[in-house]
Amino acid sequence: MAKKSKKKTRPPARRGTKPANAAGKRAGSKKKSASKAPKRDPFAPVAVKTGPGMSPMEIGSKLVADFNAGKMHLNEMWSPAIVSIEGVGVSQAWNGRKAVDAKNAWWASEHTVHGASAEGPYVGATGFAVKFVIDVETRSTGTREMMTEIGVYSVKNGKIVQEEFMYRAG
Amino acid sequence: MAKKSKKKTRPPARRGTKPANAAGKRAGSKKKSASKAPKRDPFAPVAVKTGPGMSPMEIGSKLVADFNAGKMHLNEMWSPAIVSIEGVGVSQAWNGRKAVDAKNAWWASEHTVHGASAEGPYVGATGFAVKFVIDVETRSTGTREMMTEIGVYSVKNGKIVQEEFMYRAG
Repeated sequence: MAKKSKKKTRPPARRGTKPANAAGKRAGSKKKSASKAPKRDPFAPVAVKTGPGMSPMEIGSKLVADFNAGKMHLNEMWSPAIVSIEGVGVSQAWNGRKAVDAKNAWWASEHTVHGASAEGPYVGATGFAVKFVIDVETRSTGTREMMTEIGVYSVKNGKIVQEEFMYRAG
Repeated sequence: MAKKSKKKTRPPARRGTKPANAAGKRAGSKKKSASKAPKRDPFAPVAVKTGPGMSPMEIGSKLVADFNAGKMHLNEMWSPAIVSIEGVGVSQAWNGRKAVDAKNAWWASEHTVHGASAEGPYVGATGFAVKFVIDVETRSTGTREMMTEIGVYSVKNGKIVQEEFMYRAG
């Protein structure tokens, strides 16, 4: 997710070696464009893109509309390589569509949802977030509670490649 | 963020080469622990950790408390290598503390905040999220509005290494 730090692209030059690294390449291109090339502001921001296909705005809007219409399920908007992360207290990642389907099936078998709503989407540059409020009963214990959580979705090339559920603590 | 897919750790064996890759290593360790070793469920989840230092819960709770006490500013909880991403419509990343400080100083110079509150934290496995509502006036135009956004924070080794602001669209 756009973690281009100077340190990574400019490894310290080793003693006695020719700088054939990123720093070396940069010096080369500078020479090519002569003295006219404007110096790049090292503090200037860089563009963040999610690639071709549906945008985070489009995917997020459809997810929220589907959820509020009661037809939330993993569909073609999720990548087959989806990584699904459950938040604090669970802190585990399920990798791939089959694993995520199994997790969701387990959850559905253990809980009765009496009501639910989604708020958003909140649209970022790498993806989007949705706030969920779910009136849920745990079947085995009979406990009923209002679960409030934020789902954070990462989008790449028109697909959700990662989702993480963060639970309200404050 | 824990994107360990089978495909990455198990590259296809090349014809005529000895499997000295991840798959080969796994076979070796299997041999060591003989036939007693249980087969790992390929759909089982994997642990997600943020390393030593303050946890996402601790950092998130402090950030929300500070914000609601009116003393929100980048402090030692943010990594010097912080990446700060602004959401849809801006879709840019500011890299490093100096760049982020400059962005924040510009924002403060352009806006008057009449009131603000933070809700959360919502705590995940890789970090946390906070919902902000800000009553803000743009100085140059005089426009006053309620901005609602979710900040998504990634934590590593007790520091915020990435923050992304996602704007309410739905």
